[in-house]
Amino acid sequence: MEKYKRNERIGAIIKILADNPNKVITYNFFSEKFFAAKSSISEDILVVKKIIENLEMGKIETVSGAAGGVKYVPSMSHGDREYFLEEVCKKLRDPERIIPGGFLYYTDILYMPDIVDKLGRIIAGKYLYEKVDYVVTMETKGIPVALMTARYLNIPLVIVRRQTRVTEGTTVTINYISGSSSKIGTMSLSKRAMKKGSNVVIVDDFMKGGGTIKGIISMMEEFEAEVKGVSVLIATKEPEKKLVQDYNPLMVIRNLDPESGAIDIIPYNE
Amino acid sequence: MEKYKRNERIGAIIKILADNPNKVITYNFFSEKFFAAKSSISEDILVVKKIIENLEMGKIETVSGAAGGVKYVPSMSHGDREYFLEEVCKKLRDPERIIPGGFLYYTDILYMPDIVDKLGRIIAGKYLYEKVDYVVTMETKGIPVALMTARYLNIPLVIVRRQTRVTEGTTVTINYISGSSSKIGTMSLSKRAMKKGSNVVIVDDFMKGGGTIKGIISMMEEFEAEVKGVSVLIATKEPEKKLVQDYNPLMVIRNLDPESGAIDIIPYNE
Repeated sequence: MEKYKRNERIGAIIKILADNPNKVITYNFFSEKFFAAKSSISEDILVVKKIIENLEMGKIETVSGAAGGVKYVPSMSHGDREYFLEEVCKKLRDPERIIPGGFLYYTDILYMPDIVDKLGRIIAGKYLYEKVDYVVTMETKGIPVALMTARYLNIPLVIVRRQTRVTEGTTVTINYISGSSSKIGTMSLSKRAMKKGSNVVIVDDFMKGGGTIKGIISMMEEFEAEVKGVSVLIATKEPEKKLVQDYNPLMVIRNLDPESGAIDIIPYNE
Repeated sequence: MEKYKRNERIGAIIKILADNPNKVITYNFFSEKFFAAKSSISEDILVVKKIIENLEMGKIETVSGAAGGVKYVPSMSHGDREYFLEEVCKKLRDPERIIPGGFLYYTDILYMPDIVDKLGRIIAGKYLYEKVDYVVTMETKGIPVALMTARYLNIPLVIVRRQTRVTEGTTVTINYISGSSSKIGTMSLSKRAMKKGSNVVIVDDFMKGGGTIKGIISMMEEFEAEVKGVSVLIATKEPEKKLVQDYNPLMVIRNLDPESGAIDIIPYNE
């Protein structure tokens, strides 16, 4: 039976809590893992709480009752959020990113784990105190950030597909109208993907007219799900009138001029 | 100027290292963040190393030289790996998962952040000491585990798409033959997605005939990339002769009998 010093217990507790964001871990678990009395663990947790909160790395919350314990609630300070999003915007303002047709290339940013980790932490921060069962996204580019959001909320991800697949079993398929191009698109979701009557948060990478998000909202109606929020990474300022009114963007493109190479993208000020 | 106690520094160092797997963080950074002498930080790191290694949570490695510092190398003990994969297999052996056509429904498992986190950690463990620039996957189901693998390797993810998109700019498109059904498929990748001459690891969720993986390998040739490894979550035992010889599965389906509901899936014994 190995004994751990306080130092060691504190370090290990932080590692375990950080690896399991938003998940309640019991005092018993720690007590058994470190062969320590619950009273010692309680004192350790107080130090852990102080460390995490002083350094603005999130919060440590105590949950009482039968399933009682402690959990790490990830968050980012307002200042860190602003600084980080401005750094992302700076990267996106590179004129080389303009693609024929007046599009902005940002796929690389969305596929960098350290960036999507922070983006997911920011989005999750909005819903930490709501009862949410799933994070829902539409394939493909929004998946990484949606997964990280789900990770920080400690709930499963659901990915709506463009086409039905034989490996998904019975699916629900709906048509939707793209808000900006007025084209009709199809989306489908396996009946097994979600329990009926769930609460969901929709996360997507880009929103112009809002057609895709509106499509996902219709799909959620088929599953009798309640949409508790919509977060998009990048929204365009134009058109001002979108098919979805209630959404939270992290960044906004106010203007993109292929001629001059000017890309006016800024963090959205909450 | 706030002073931190040793306890507090150790906890915070662990949190920072765990949040940035496989990334070198300098002693200077810690020294400035905690207003502590480098010699104190060195002693802290020794404690951190002991904690992480005693609890089999990975390794702490010191990197010397100009860019010197310390990094957290995530890993999982052999016992934990076996136990975890057996737990996943147990979930997958539920006869309710059999879909008409003799397919196994496992999408839900792949969309659970805590599960894909561990799967990604296991896969990353194979390539921690290789020089790898990108993790490459094909949309859609393999994306979460590929992203987690990329996160633990601290490198970007690249997602090969089924169709070209105007928002991706110039793309390379290839045709490939599905190994099991002999159908022809298309895959495309933006020329901006990867630097030429990179080293890559391919991660996908499922492999039967090996056609998709072979397609991705052909795509990598177009980018003059060297494939350093192929990892798949689930491979089928049949057909024994696959289009790709050299691959690492985490789990193997030996048999699936829709009649009796028997699903014979086991962790692959490395």
